[in-house]
Amino acid sequence: MLGQIINTNAKWISERLAEIGVDVYYHVTVGDNKGRLRAAVEAAMQRADCILVTGGLGPTADDITRETVAELLGRELREDACVLASIQRRFTARGRVMTPNNRKQALLLEGAKVIENPNGTAPGQIIEHRGRSIVLLPGPPSELQPMFTRCIMPYLCERMGQRAVIVSRVVRICGPGESVVEEKVKDLLAGENPTVAPYASLGEVQLRVTAKAHDRAAASQLIEGTVHEICCRLGGDVYGFDNEDLVSLCSRLLTEKGLTLAIAESCTGGLLASRLTSIAGASSFFFGCVVAYDNSAKRDILGVPSSVLESFGAVSAECAVLMAQQARARLMTDIGIAITGISGPEGGTANKPVGTTFIALCAPEGTLVVKDRFLGERNQNREWAVVRALDTLRRYLTLQEIPGRLSNVWQ
Amino acid sequence: MLGQIINTNAKWISERLAEIGVDVYYHVTVGDNKGRLRAAVEAAMQRADCILVTGGLGPTADDITRETVAELLGRELREDACVLASIQRRFTARGRVMTPNNRKQALLLEGAKVIENPNGTAPGQIIEHRGRSIVLLPGPPSELQPMFTRCIMPYLCERMGQRAVIVSRVVRICGPGESVVEEKVKDLLAGENPTVAPYASLGEVQLRVTAKAHDRAAASQLIEGTVHEICCRLGGDVYGFDNEDLVSLCSRLLTEKGLTLAIAESCTGGLLASRLTSIAGASSFFFGCVVAYDNSAKRDILGVPSSVLESFGAVSAECAVLMAQQARARLMTDIGIAITGISGPEGGTANKPVGTTFIALCAPEGTLVVKDRFLGERNQNREWAVVRALDTLRRYLTLQEIPGRLSNVWQ
Repeated sequence: MLGQIINTNAKWISERLAEIGVDVYYHVTVGDNKGRLRAAVEAAMQRADCILVTGGLGPTADDITRETVAELLGRELREDACVLASIQRRFTARGRVMTPNNRKQALLLEGAKVIENPNGTAPGQIIEHRGRSIVLLPGPPSELQPMFTRCIMPYLCERMGQRAVIVSRVVRICGPGESVVEEKVKDLLAGENPTVAPYASLGEVQLRVTAKAHDRAAASQLIEGTVHEICCRLGGDVYGFDNEDLVSLCSRLLTEKGLTLAIAESCTGGLLASRLTSIAGASSFFFGCVVAYDNSAKRDILGVPSSVLESFGAVSAECAVLMAQQARARLMTDIGIAITGISGPEGGTANKPVGTTFIALCAPEGTLVVKDRFLGERNQNREWAVVRALDTLRRYLTLQEIPGRLSNVWQ
Repeated sequence: MLGQIINTNAKWISERLAEIGVDVYYHVTVGDNKGRLRAAVEAAMQRADCILVTGGLGPTADDITRETVAELLGRELREDACVLASIQRRFTARGRVMTPNNRKQALLLEGAKVIENPNGTAPGQIIEHRGRSIVLLPGPPSELQPMFTRCIMPYLCERMGQRAVIVSRVVRICGPGESVVEEKVKDLLAGENPTVAPYASLGEVQLRVTAKAHDRAAASQLIEGTVHEICCRLGGDVYGFDNEDLVSLCSRLLTEKGLTLAIAESCTGGLLASRLTSIAGASSFFFGCVVAYDNSAKRDILGVPSSVLESFGAVSAECAVLMAQQARARLMTDIGIAITGISGPEGGTANKPVGTTFIALCAPEGTLVVKDRFLGERNQNREWAVVRALDTLRRYLTLQEIPGRLSNVWQ
């Protein structure tokens, strides 16, 4: 309530509930105050079938959720031997002594169903009371999220008369924009089981496929059918699944294939190199990058001839090709990749408006160039250029067609 | 309520209210539903002196805040000619035609005080009703925030019996950690007018000084006294004020002084160069960067002798010095700056544990090296190294002492 913490749980839980068709009507936040917490839960019980309460289950004096809800419902709190033993095991495993205040976390409301918490000490609890379900969950997202996906989503489906297991998978797409993707899977977006929900983030589109079924195998089968259909319709634009993003994918492919990489960047100023080195193990494939921001750097460090800079300009297919070839040659790598463009807001011309960007990839087979034009602000254009370069790299590594490829430049 | 939007307004407003001593007791979120919005405002009026409602003031059919609150309070909605004219001016200025649905935004509740919205079409409204204040504000943060700071904070101070203007200033500090800063300004943190609130973010500490007074001049005077005191106590660790961060500051100083910069990066992989090029105009001082990630790149592109790499290692003061000198020499700039370190999680040794980092700065006066050790995860260590390099650069440019400077290396 002091504004130090942003409520990401409300967003995350609402997203998950939308996936299984639960209507969310109210988010209410109160501080660690017994009167206001009690009033908030009491009011919620007048208007909702299910009340999810997060936070306030820890060991300290201001963790008041358990006792406040117990009082409101007129139920006893009882120490549970199993829960206590599991809390004690957590401390022992870490070589620490359990302080007495931690005992409090083993208190269960009379009649509560325990939700195990593999990532923390306080378990969750589900209490059914006069036709309502009250669900208590810990506040930290790392504890709450797995408990919610594994136990609360299936519980709510069952509560809604759907005895079900929920499984979801994310299909990651790079290349087409969100509207193009939506157009291609329009009928699937209207489906009810599995549901397909699109999310667009800088340069990529994700489709989250969520299925309900009576068991995990059946839910997975439902998902796989739709995931397969999406992959068929989008072809090489689908680059991966779940948590593996473009940077991780390119890193993995380069490492697996034993290929090495050199980079030359102009407008992106080292952004591509910094992304690839954000993952441990980059040294197994990444040798280095020349950020040739000024033309003198393109000439003096990369050896791009002044004549090329003068005839074609620094933002040209010809310059991109030379940058990629020279980075590769000087660092003696298998692949060289280069980005040169006009990020804006200044520097655009009639022929080469702001956002114009060339990406070159040089490999033993030859060199290719991609031309694109981004329509965002300076830093969006830079981000998009990096995504486009990574996408070009992964398409090369997985033998996909490369959109926007120019054929009329030097090989 | 579908989880697509995260509620940053609740956090931002709560932070501002904490600064002026307003206790926030409830955050309630409902969808664009008349019944639930009405119930939420009605319940809030039972328990609070002031109810802030954000969002739902736009031109479309689902923007229902105005009419719902008008109905609840039993007040008429009347089109205001001044507001309508100002909305029309906005459209004219942009060369667009105002569609009829925009008229709705000129509707004011009977007796409402208008809050001008310089960044959007819908104005805010304050309605006083049976001893309560109901404040309606637009949802987009870019519209809400300036209206809140300029009008709502002073209004609430007056409402609390403090006829006052609020002015705040942020003091930006780089070098010492949050606890050291807090220790030095402990007495100021306990002050009531101005209040001093610390915020720590990656590598820097901010102190927001907020004062209330009967007019702007008096509030500014109160602030300046405390800001001056903070600057005296923290000396060269204070690098700036308000919105100018380290990257902007370094860019401005280099541009103003007409100095040029070359960079060599190892563990940070281009992160420093990408930050400096995120601001338009970087080309006036930044020539280029060599990301010498692999030792072969340090040798072949920067010309660091193999003997240095073998005797001292790539993570050494000696290597950092050569990287900075070579980057400067090859790109023919006034200043060269280099970062080499062990980001982790692998690669640490007993002598050079994970986090060990050397930063060298080479200028016409000579070369200096800073040694530091960061105790975070890989990407935190990389971020901290970039901040430390920027801080070393700004201290050099402003003739401040440089903490962590080694004296026993080559000049």
